[in-house]
Amino acid sequence: MNQDLRREREAASFNPELLTHVLDGSPENTRRRREIENLILKDPDFQHEDLNFLTRSQRYEVAVRKSANMVKKMREFGIADPEEIMWFKKMHLVNFVEPVGLNFSMFIPTLLNQGTTAQQEKWLPSSKGLQIIGTYAQTEMGHGTHLRGLETTATYDPETQEFILNSPTVTSIKWWPGGLGKTSNHAIVLAQLITKGKCYGLHAFIAPIREIGTHKPLPGITVGDIGPKFGYDEMDNGYLKMDNYRIPRENMLMKYAQVKPDGTYVKPVSNKLTYGTMVFVRSFLVGEAARCLSKACTIAIRYSAVRHQSEIKLGEPEPQILDFQTQQYKLFPLLATAYAFQFVGAYMKETYHRINEDIGQGDLSELPELHALTAGLKAFTSWTTNAAIEACRMACGGHGYSHCSGLPNIYVNFTPTCTFEGENTVMMLQTARFLMKSYDQVHSGKLVCGMVSYLNDLPTQRIQPQQVAVWPTVVDIDSPDSLTEAYKLRAARLVEIAAKNLQNEVIHRESKEVAWNLTSVDLVQASEAHCHYVVVKLFSEKLLKIQDKSVHAVLRNLCLLYCLYGISQKAGDFLQGSIMTESQITQVNQRIKELLTAVRPDAVALVDAFDFQDVTLGSVLGRYDGNVYENLFEWARKSPLNKSEVHESYRKYLKPLQSKL
Amino acid sequence: MNQDLRREREAASFNPELLTHVLDGSPENTRRRREIENLILKDPDFQHEDLNFLTRSQRYEVAVRKSANMVKKMREFGIADPEEIMWFKKMHLVNFVEPVGLNFSMFIPTLLNQGTTAQQEKWLPSSKGLQIIGTYAQTEMGHGTHLRGLETTATYDPETQEFILNSPTVTSIKWWPGGLGKTSNHAIVLAQLITKGKCYGLHAFIAPIREIGTHKPLPGITVGDIGPKFGYDEMDNGYLKMDNYRIPRENMLMKYAQVKPDGTYVKPVSNKLTYGTMVFVRSFLVGEAARCLSKACTIAIRYSAVRHQSEIKLGEPEPQILDFQTQQYKLFPLLATAYAFQFVGAYMKETYHRINEDIGQGDLSELPELHALTAGLKAFTSWTTNAAIEACRMACGGHGYSHCSGLPNIYVNFTPTCTFEGENTVMMLQTARFLMKSYDQVHSGKLVCGMVSYLNDLPTQRIQPQQVAVWPTVVDIDSPDSLTEAYKLRAARLVEIAAKNLQNEVIHRESKEVAWNLTSVDLVQASEAHCHYVVVKLFSEKLLKIQDKSVHAVLRNLCLLYCLYGISQKAGDFLQGSIMTESQITQVNQRIKELLTAVRPDAVALVDAFDFQDVTLGSVLGRYDGNVYENLFEWARKSPLNKSEVHESYRKYLKPLQSKL
Repeated sequence: MNQDLRREREAASFNPELLTHVLDGSPENTRRRREIENLILKDPDFQHEDLNFLTRSQRYEVAVRKSANMVKKMREFGIADPEEIMWFKKMHLVNFVEPVGLNFSMFIPTLLNQGTTAQQEKWLPSSKGLQIIGTYAQTEMGHGTHLRGLETTATYDPETQEFILNSPTVTSIKWWPGGLGKTSNHAIVLAQLITKGKCYGLHAFIAPIREIGTHKPLPGITVGDIGPKFGYDEMDNGYLKMDNYRIPRENMLMKYAQVKPDGTYVKPVSNKLTYGTMVFVRSFLVGEAARCLSKACTIAIRYSAVRHQSEIKLGEPEPQILDFQTQQYKLFPLLATAYAFQFVGAYMKETYHRINEDIGQGDLSELPELHALTAGLKAFTSWTTNAAIEACRMACGGHGYSHCSGLPNIYVNFTPTCTFEGENTVMMLQTARFLMKSYDQVHSGKLVCGMVSYLNDLPTQRIQPQQVAVWPTVVDIDSPDSLTEAYKLRAARLVEIAAKNLQNEVIHRESKEVAWNLTSVDLVQASEAHCHYVVVKLFSEKLLKIQDKSVHAVLRNLCLLYCLYGISQKAGDFLQGSIMTESQITQVNQRIKELLTAVRPDAVALVDAFDFQDVTLGSVLGRYDGNVYENLFEWARKSPLNKSEVHESYRKYLKPLQSKL
Repeated sequence: MNQDLRREREAASFNPELLTHVLDGSPENTRRRREIENLILKDPDFQHEDLNFLTRSQRYEVAVRKSANMVKKMREFGIADPEEIMWFKKMHLVNFVEPVGLNFSMFIPTLLNQGTTAQQEKWLPSSKGLQIIGTYAQTEMGHGTHLRGLETTATYDPETQEFILNSPTVTSIKWWPGGLGKTSNHAIVLAQLITKGKCYGLHAFIAPIREIGTHKPLPGITVGDIGPKFGYDEMDNGYLKMDNYRIPRENMLMKYAQVKPDGTYVKPVSNKLTYGTMVFVRSFLVGEAARCLSKACTIAIRYSAVRHQSEIKLGEPEPQILDFQTQQYKLFPLLATAYAFQFVGAYMKETYHRINEDIGQGDLSELPELHALTAGLKAFTSWTTNAAIEACRMACGGHGYSHCSGLPNIYVNFTPTCTFEGENTVMMLQTARFLMKSYDQVHSGKLVCGMVSYLNDLPTQRIQPQQVAVWPTVVDIDSPDSLTEAYKLRAARLVEIAAKNLQNEVIHRESKEVAWNLTSVDLVQASEAHCHYVVVKLFSEKLLKIQDKSVHAVLRNLCLLYCLYGISQKAGDFLQGSIMTESQITQVNQRIKELLTAVRPDAVALVDAFDFQDVTLGSVLGRYDGNVYENLFEWARKSPLNKSEVHESYRKYLKPLQSKL
């Protein structure tokens, strides 16, 4: 093992294994996770050349091979619990994506949620075994987040008892669905249902798109890959154009809405449950943000401990770059953020399961808040993580730019999270809508509960943006609880400002909607402040549950660093509301520097605790053993350009130029 | 032309052609630039398949072909003026890079700067004609910005009158030089010179690395490509390992330092002039940042005018996404930044030329400030641009993630600017060193001049971080001059805080160097504030030179937006120094929203004025004619995965799985 890393690990103030148990939820969870991970790490069927050296077509092929292997192995190993499937898939994919992913994450769940029993019996067994490979085709070339704008039509023909699917315009071509381009043979197509001359809005239909056995596109279907992207090279995101393409009436998913053989439309009783799937996916993405940020921190911090560069004192050996305050200031707040998001992710998972049980028992009362919270936190954590991964990459200097660091791939495969499953700004505005509703509710004399209950205090406090010293400035910058209070006051203030600005615009504009648009910058800021408060609150509360003294001490420093760094970045918000004084902000900046020094000796152990065995697969710089340089040289020599000593373009283009002289 | 774009252009309040002249410097410059650009746009020799569809080896080959063409065409077209070469190369490259680039940008200039007349006569003619293809090998696997740490040795052997070049460790292997991997046959190698048993530090040597005629690596030379990176796919960044590799004594560049045949070392008289090259390259990078950000804004704003999505009013047609306040808030401050950086880039170019003339006449007085300014502005503009390009990409939603947007390539080819030619944090600390020196000078009673002259006012004002109402708060948020004053006060305050914290650490720590490290976060913030002030100041001053009334009006709005957005983002700094009041900050936020509305009608014309003909080559979304969707479909169908109807991996991996069921 690299001497620097050995020294770092020996000097750590706590046992990282205990912290890993905290992150996994229990020692038993850690044990089982590692068991599953080892199944793959040691399985020769999952070995393959570094994807970075392959062409896109080769990368796609490797991914298909691994997908096929995965299905076989999951049966073989008896992995069936959803969480274990998640671990298994995560390991297997390392940082990459799989063409058959949507069959399991979207096609089957939609069939289960919206299909009748007969429909499930017809399609479920073969889709589970990948005879049917399904995808989910919703987004169109011209239409994304705004579902009502989708143009694809499904017109019912009572004579043949078929739906006629059409892509009437270029913009209506289905665009982006994963696995659609080359892999899938079926798609759940979202289309505007038209029957008896009337449009009833979006409904889901099962459309076969390729012939089983030959895999050729069926007549009336134009399907293919949408072309190269920033990342997701292994994924055949696809397009689908349908021209008078007919499917039987039974292919409409009819658990809720129905079309009778004569074309009569039967309305669904309720739409609430589709809500649940969105909430699940978004809360999962919060955990994904935490994992990706944790990986990026692992790589950047291990490399910063191994890399020696420049000098602090003239003439002395080059220090580890982790000893530079500027490097610590780049990385340690991100490390603190990674821990914060890990705890938020775990909370979201628990909450989702709890509320799901409530829903099962008919209690939908907490769903609106959960919906608002997942929307906002999905946006908040993915935006932060997005910028943070790049900050980690750039903190690795030149080598961060090479694929040897593993960081470019983490970034390009994470960044779509800011756009998909609800574009982040739209998500923030959904949260804002809930905040405005709650604000109105409080002002009409009703109490609100849950994470927004701080709004109950607003009417008495009557915050005025300009009014000084409304809040008692007793923030203790060494107390996570007190800092949580400060974040709460900031959220309350920004919610109030947004609400008042909105009211003001409503008075002056022709419509509520125009007023909403003209306040949307404030609304997004209010949502961000609310989410930031929630993250700080959950981190502080998590501290109370940590038994081990040394683990508690180091997490407490990270919690303080997370809180104070946020205050420093948004000092204006805390000063304007007179939540903190100018001298407190100065103290905050000083305290941050002390915390950097305090975290420094534990930094490597803190990333070890994330326990990413797979980082070593995807990153030369992030290796647990820290053997960076020898491995880097070995890695580079496999570059495709090094296959021949002299590249053919020399003979074609450079040699002729030289001989002319 | 797309109807939306036509309408936008017709409604613009000014003539974009006049603004293009401002950006180019004169109407004549605009005319000549377009003439050169058209030479390439219309030349079939420069046409090639979209690089996004090619493998890395194919991309490299296209780049070599274009490089060879370029050399021929420049002669043919009589392009010799350095600025014209720059335009020519920019066009020709679109957003990409060229393997022979370093021959012209580093090999030849170094030969000119550091070679004797005899050396220039020997190597210059053949390197200009690409018989010798040279690169510049400085960075090593283990050593970057800190030059003293480089390990490569050049040991003089007086018996044979040769230098023996060695890469004594893995970390000493030369790493990153552009064109080194496969293209170059010579390299200027930076190595520690050892003669008569003594090390004299870094010197430059010309090392042949491949045999002319066969292009095979010479004995003792191990050379190759360093492997795939985030971007720069067309560039063969390379490694170079030398084992007892001998070169004649005459291959040391000896214009300044010399080694006599007997091994006697002769010191150089001065080192000042190497300074000049760094300043030139960094000031060029400021312009590059401006150009890349302008391109990204062009794409994102044109697409936002064409894209219709969601709804502001229920039931009405989907609006252009440029009408959403949140979209304006994402893009217009970046557009304002692009203009700000354009003017900074032009200023840097002028200043460099002016000071270069002074240097020619022996006047080095302004060099230290110029050096500090270019270092800081290189970091400030590249960091801002880096984040801004990604913000533009994400503002294009899903399609921004596709290579059809052109934005991923702009980003991955720009982002190394934050690391190369001086890592940004190191750059900021160099600027800080100058600021601290200037601060000390003022405190010792001497006046400072140039951009830091505001420090002259400090001793009398005696800023105290906690002291309220030191500055007269008379900021007029509608006056660029008054806002420039506010930025000046902020810079002064942060320089003073950094200086005082540094003094305080010096008292408590064992050494000045440790104190410097423990203040470096403050020092970077001081440098950022200084650079921000300079940018604001240059933008405000530029306004005074704009003759056309309508152009002036629209640029004035952009200048205000740039200033106010910065204040809003860093409100804490302006509040803490009592530079502005809380109610002024509230007004700033309100005024920003008004400015978004004011800029909206001119947004498309403002990006048209950048006049990027080449954006249409690299971006489907950024096309001048706005025909996005049809072109997108056409583009996608050329995806390499669409070459065959059924991908071979179906037969290999999916079909067997299906038949088993």
